[in-house]
Amino acid sequence: MGGDHGPPVVIPAVVRAIASLPRDVGFLLHGDESVIRAGLAKHPDIAGRCEVRHAERVIAMDEKPAQALRRGKGTSMWNAVEAVREGQAVAAVSAGNTGALMAISKLILRMCADLERPALVTSIPTLMTTFLDVGANIDCDAERLVEFAIMGEAYHRAAHGVPRPTVGLLNVGSEEMKGHEEVREAHRVLREGKLDLDYRGFVEGDDITRGSVDVIVTDGFTGNVALKAMEGAARFMNAELRGAFTSGLMATLGAVLARPALLKFRERMSPTPAAPLLGLNGIVLKCHGGASDRDFAMALRLAADLSRSDFSAEIERNMRRLPCALAEPAPEAAAPEGATE
Amino acid sequence: MGGDHGPPVVIPAVVRAIASLPRDVGFLLHGDESVIRAGLAKHPDIAGRCEVRHAERVIAMDEKPAQALRRGKGTSMWNAVEAVREGQAVAAVSAGNTGALMAISKLILRMCADLERPALVTSIPTLMTTFLDVGANIDCDAERLVEFAIMGEAYHRAAHGVPRPTVGLLNVGSEEMKGHEEVREAHRVLREGKLDLDYRGFVEGDDITRGSVDVIVTDGFTGNVALKAMEGAARFMNAELRGAFTSGLMATLGAVLARPALLKFRERMSPTPAAPLLGLNGIVLKCHGGASDRDFAMALRLAADLSRSDFSAEIERNMRRLPCALAEPAPEAAAPEGATE
Repeated sequence: MGGDHGPPVVIPAVVRAIASLPRDVGFLLHGDESVIRAGLAKHPDIAGRCEVRHAERVIAMDEKPAQALRRGKGTSMWNAVEAVREGQAVAAVSAGNTGALMAISKLILRMCADLERPALVTSIPTLMTTFLDVGANIDCDAERLVEFAIMGEAYHRAAHGVPRPTVGLLNVGSEEMKGHEEVREAHRVLREGKLDLDYRGFVEGDDITRGSVDVIVTDGFTGNVALKAMEGAARFMNAELRGAFTSGLMATLGAVLARPALLKFRERMSPTPAAPLLGLNGIVLKCHGGASDRDFAMALRLAADLSRSDFSAEIERNMRRLPCALAEPAPEAAAPEGATE
Repeated sequence: MGGDHGPPVVIPAVVRAIASLPRDVGFLLHGDESVIRAGLAKHPDIAGRCEVRHAERVIAMDEKPAQALRRGKGTSMWNAVEAVREGQAVAAVSAGNTGALMAISKLILRMCADLERPALVTSIPTLMTTFLDVGANIDCDAERLVEFAIMGEAYHRAAHGVPRPTVGLLNVGSEEMKGHEEVREAHRVLREGKLDLDYRGFVEGDDITRGSVDVIVTDGFTGNVALKAMEGAARFMNAELRGAFTSGLMATLGAVLARPALLKFRERMSPTPAAPLLGLNGIVLKCHGGASDRDFAMALRLAADLSRSDFSAEIERNMRRLPCALAEPAPEAAAPEGATE
């Protein structure tokens, strides 16, 4: 167990999650056995559904992915992912180092269906819009963007039970000629309808929090910046709001009266804690490094939901259509009229 | 006068702005003479400082830039920019079509100091952080990013009176090896210190609302998406907050008591209405299409501030250092170690 907190967060999270999960769901807890056993001793009711797997070491939060690959064997993260490959676990959940988790997962589980790298996906609070990639793939060509659409759509159905999620491609305007070449080419492929997707065209930055479509696709650079920019804006507004509510007697009194509503508001706005890595032969979830036990429990429940779904098979099925979808541009799309942006 | 509203917004804006501007500042009002004269008739006190320039036509909000260039001559937008070139006005302010304003400004005023295209800059509410490019330049190489740093720094000094603004480059992490090639190369050039800039290195999406640096530089695709994502997040939070405050009697009562504080909060959070186009031989400001008279008045005051500053000369001075700054990569930076992101 890595992350910023380790067992003091993970064990209470298991306690929370276990209450709402079927009786046949159990947990493998990877980390320092004595620490974990001490934590479990306080919760005898769940001890029977947990198995402790001792690991001598953890991956440090600042370790580089290449380093983690070289020295990762035997760490709790490595063992957790390996347990998925061995079929001992259906999913691995970690609050540890993102880059290391991605590299180790890719090495141990390998990519499914000719995908190249895992995509990191997140859900926008309240709306549950699926947004990817949020930082795993910095340079993305058109084919990569189309793959994200395939993965994100299957994931959204599995995570939220929406039978036919709608998909949009993030751009700086809604006209065909807008955006850079990669995004226009991905648009052409998605629009032609050779994939099994309900593609709705370009969306813009403010659509991320508008619920215009279920799944929003972008490259990992733009996605990471946009996600952090929104989180920063939310934090900034919360701080300003706090300032407004302490700016005078009436405002403070108002805040006291509205306190339950404000707490509920803050809870609704808090970032979704779990970011699955998509495209692997197995389920791996990244939980925020500073996740609370409530956050980590949400990640555990999401992992259980995903493990009961068929989303990997759906990704593979749609990926088989991709070569045909990428081929032969339609004549009218072959020569886009001079892009002025 | 174009934009979504035209004279009904622009004339009250002039009334607002004129009150706080020196007596020698006057206005050329381009548009339908009879409509403008009718509007001015209600404000005899400002009529003496306004000169009406009749224009038969306006550029439509949905006109393509290429179309606007072909058919723009004689429109109010064209005439306003031409008046800057002719020295009859020190700045042009428009709430019209952004792409058309950019194309017409570039054609009539031309770029200064070998710059290639105007950059669209905005200020983050409350913090006044300068953020560019927010949509004018979709594909940006390293040189373009460095130019944005030069323009943004000079602009920030002129607009906010900060003697030595700090500059950051937007990326997905703060380590040297992070990000795509363009951003790493721009980082190398800026870090070497051959330009007259206080460069502070990489910043991330949440730094935009943190005030970590005065000027944040990015390409127009990322900047446009991030800005709209933040605006969307703010709108979404406002709607949720309204929902929270009407969720029950106590919450509603709280909102009534806190109303003045909440109104001030909303005002502080509202997006900055004016986005200057940087890099032209002359000052051109784009005002939001749906700008209120208060917004448009802010844009007019900003235009007056900029016209009294020396920022174009500062841009030119720093641009002359650019060829030397771009040359000869330092040996240790020539071969970045394998980027794993």
